[in-house]
Amino acid sequence: MYDCIIIGAGPAGLTAAIYLLRENKKIKIIEKETIGGKITSSARVDNYPGFKSISGSELANKLFEQVTNLGGEIDIEEFQKINNDKIKEVITDEGTYQTKSIIIATGTYFNTLKIADEDKFLGNGISFCTVCDGAFYKDKVVAVVGGGNTAIINAIYLSTLAKKVYLIVREETIRGEKVNIDELLTKENIEIIYNSEVTKYLGDTSIKGIVIKNKDNTKELAVDGIFLAIGQVPETKKVNNLLNLDKYNYIEAKEDCQTNIAGIFAAGDVRSKKVRQLTTATNDGTIAALNVINYLNEED
Amino acid sequence: MYDCIIIGAGPAGLTAAIYLLRENKKIKIIEKETIGGKITSSARVDNYPGFKSISGSELANKLFEQVTNLGGEIDIEEFQKINNDKIKEVITDEGTYQTKSIIIATGTYFNTLKIADEDKFLGNGISFCTVCDGAFYKDKVVAVVGGGNTAIINAIYLSTLAKKVYLIVREETIRGEKVNIDELLTKENIEIIYNSEVTKYLGDTSIKGIVIKNKDNTKELAVDGIFLAIGQVPETKKVNNLLNLDKYNYIEAKEDCQTNIAGIFAAGDVRSKKVRQLTTATNDGTIAALNVINYLNEED
Repeated sequence: MYDCIIIGAGPAGLTAAIYLLRENKKIKIIEKETIGGKITSSARVDNYPGFKSISGSELANKLFEQVTNLGGEIDIEEFQKINNDKIKEVITDEGTYQTKSIIIATGTYFNTLKIADEDKFLGNGISFCTVCDGAFYKDKVVAVVGGGNTAIINAIYLSTLAKKVYLIVREETIRGEKVNIDELLTKENIEIIYNSEVTKYLGDTSIKGIVIKNKDNTKELAVDGIFLAIGQVPETKKVNNLLNLDKYNYIEAKEDCQTNIAGIFAAGDVRSKKVRQLTTATNDGTIAALNVINYLNEED
Repeated sequence: MYDCIIIGAGPAGLTAAIYLLRENKKIKIIEKETIGGKITSSARVDNYPGFKSISGSELANKLFEQVTNLGGEIDIEEFQKINNDKIKEVITDEGTYQTKSIIIATGTYFNTLKIADEDKFLGNGISFCTVCDGAFYKDKVVAVVGGGNTAIINAIYLSTLAKKVYLIVREETIRGEKVNIDELLTKENIEIIYNSEVTKYLGDTSIKGIVIKNKDNTKELAVDGIFLAIGQVPETKKVNNLLNLDKYNYIEAKEDCQTNIAGIFAAGDVRSKKVRQLTTATNDGTIAALNVINYLNEED
């Protein structure tokens, strides 16, 4: 029987682990894919207090080391279900584990365009992660799809590698941090195409181009790769029968991270809230862990 | 006219500064004493995500560098008053400054015993900061007053320097993180005295001892220095005519850091909330800054 199972090893989950391990709690951390979570796909993190500038994967490594230094282990397993019976159980593809409490820190995943051939090209020409896949496109032509801060940062990053970067923006304007927009506009090999949507991927076995459509016409752009930055979706499909979600499918929980079920907490980007930053994820991990400790004390 | 004046250069205020400077906002940061705030008095920070172990002053330095690297400056001035007229004004001992918005991140200050001669010995035998003043007591005898996590950490720290450490606890038990309590109990030169209060400071020009009282009797302890760790008080006396405070005098503001006055936000330990950690301070700094940006956009 675990004191707490933490589902998701991003900044929220790993911060919760730090606090619980320092209390000698018996915990299990489950991560299906990437230790460090989405932050590992950020080339540069400049707004996390304590580091002037650090790559997302380097920061993820530091969090991982901090957890292992306290005796924590991270199990790569895929979470499937929570049984909230007299004893709570977390079921993964590897087994069933009993626990007194649960912190859900599953975060969000990247949204896709949901057009033809997308599945075929995902990971094979379509990417979300410039740090992971940008190097494949040295001196080539790439498109970034999206008009927000992530799209802007991705375009800037790719402009240092690729020959040409198209930034395809659905709206008539881009939205992001001013320092980033300013930097974007200095890059001569970035072309911003406003009021346009991608309607088709072109190519047989690999991406050869895209079709974009604006109000009046459609046109083809020859590109070697596409980076999607069109928002995120909360990873809550496995808990939507158990927990109250908001209208965007984030888990309803206030500042105390308490869900509608006692002993189950939601922390980080997966929680219904206004601001999603590294600092707000570590905040949630802290608060969820301290509330787990209170909950365990009350149960004893 | 500033876009925002940040009062207090602790982790909350400096995080807010990072976010605002990255948006090219014109800001002024006011600090009356210590850049980095209370964290500078922590010998060791082991639970801030990203650093396995770092001294509080080293972390404060990193935050300071991050702000100056973005072009921020911190002005050592003492905040005195806010005028919330048509134009907001912040008044310090150095001048009067107009601003569109304000973030109050003044934190808390250390509580004292409020017994005779305290003022005389403060900074002269009575201290709050083991990192600052611990070295004065190498091979001497010191008392730590308090029964919480800070008192425990201070006693552990001092035990490596001083010959003997008394930990004077008012209750019949100590409360703190389990790792810290475990470490405390291994230290042979720490003597914990439960159920006892300090009623008198002894000495003429410098501390010679204390009188402690339990249910049945009083006794004198010869000590060379005293470290108080008996809680904190929010720094809100200069705003209590303007802002709604909770019953402990913390500024009432929810997760969005919004006070009862539009354009004035409260961030960090000074805000009414349950958990006060480094991570929750940087969380507040982030959220307050982003809400300042929204506020400025709406006002324009």
